[in-house]
Amino acid sequence: MKKIEEQVKFLMEIDKVKGILRQSVILGDVNRRENDAEHSWHMAICALTLKEYVDLENIDLEKVFKMILLHDVVEVYSDDTPAFSNYSKEEKFRNELAAAQKIFGLLPEEQYKEYFKLWLEFENMETNEAKFANVFDRFQGFIQNLSSDGHTWKKWNVTKEMVLRRLDPLIKYAPKIYEDFISLEIDKYVAKGIIKL
Amino acid sequence: MKKIEEQVKFLMEIDKVKGILRQSVILGDVNRRENDAEHSWHMAICALTLKEYVDLENIDLEKVFKMILLHDVVEVYSDDTPAFSNYSKEEKFRNELAAAQKIFGLLPEEQYKEYFKLWLEFENMETNEAKFANVFDRFQGFIQNLSSDGHTWKKWNVTKEMVLRRLDPLIKYAPKIYEDFISLEIDKYVAKGIIKL
Repeated sequence: MKKIEEQVKFLMEIDKVKGILRQSVILGDVNRRENDAEHSWHMAICALTLKEYVDLENIDLEKVFKMILLHDVVEVYSDDTPAFSNYSKEEKFRNELAAAQKIFGLLPEEQYKEYFKLWLEFENMETNEAKFANVFDRFQGFIQNLSSDGHTWKKWNVTKEMVLRRLDPLIKYAPKIYEDFISLEIDKYVAKGIIKL
Repeated sequence: MKKIEEQVKFLMEIDKVKGILRQSVILGDVNRRENDAEHSWHMAICALTLKEYVDLENIDLEKVFKMILLHDVVEVYSDDTPAFSNYSKEEKFRNELAAAQKIFGLLPEEQYKEYFKLWLEFENMETNEAKFANVFDRFQGFIQNLSSDGHTWKKWNVTKEMVLRRLDPLIKYAPKIYEDFISLEIDKYVAKGIIKL
């Protein structure tokens, strides 16, 4: 196969990301679940728009965008893991690792390595760019709850502790977003009884 | 309103992009039209993956990503214009200009100006980054036709001339993609009678 044909094969295969459904729903329709492609697009604009509040230095935003765009592509072969479900982190990682090798393996060698590394970097959350990207993975999930009156919080009967644990990277690396916005919203949803104490 | 509240308001409003439907459909389901959020995400990965074939120098990829992510946000208030329909370019631009002012106007002044400029730059297609981004707007639409046996080409009874006109930025700025891949696919669809001569 020609190099460009391999690349196009990958680009056509990742169309399936549009069919991988998350627990979150979109604004105004609790029956319309959000998919991974929509989530990734939204997450990238959240990162761009709120970058001033993140306490991480020397961020390469181009790399952050690449990570965000690619982070859920593996789910084409491993499916989405609900954030509030009781899942095994090890098993999730094993499945996604195999999926990453399969989906990025469609690409020419050099690009396979590049995309695989970006995916792994996001997962490991050790570099500043990976931390930055993870902040907005959590943030985007949070605002989908705000626009659906806490849809996934209700569905999974979530406690404040579970919400805070999920938000951990955001609280650590973007405390301003937490203090000035997120914590106030959590208080409202606790008062409404939607987030349990 | 606090600055961060304005920014979050914008981020929650653009959730509506996920409901703006295009003519293209997704892989394996001609009844499932693609939306603008999915298109933008896919287009960004196409740009990243095929950038080596573009004949434009000194490309700032971070800026290209920003343009791609934001280019269809205005359609929240102006809706999508089918590429092969007989539309007035002037009227489309007038509507989208008003929509851009409205949607980006939710943001703090400085960010409003930044996003508005990026949108306008994409539309005017004069800078190298805008040309680059437009190449992949056309490319992504093209491969959605390949994965649906020419769905929009059939729907709009499209001729080869119309397809080539639509691909104009790609043919100009990424002739290698045209010669090594696109033109061969067009020939196949002409032979099948799906693209009319």
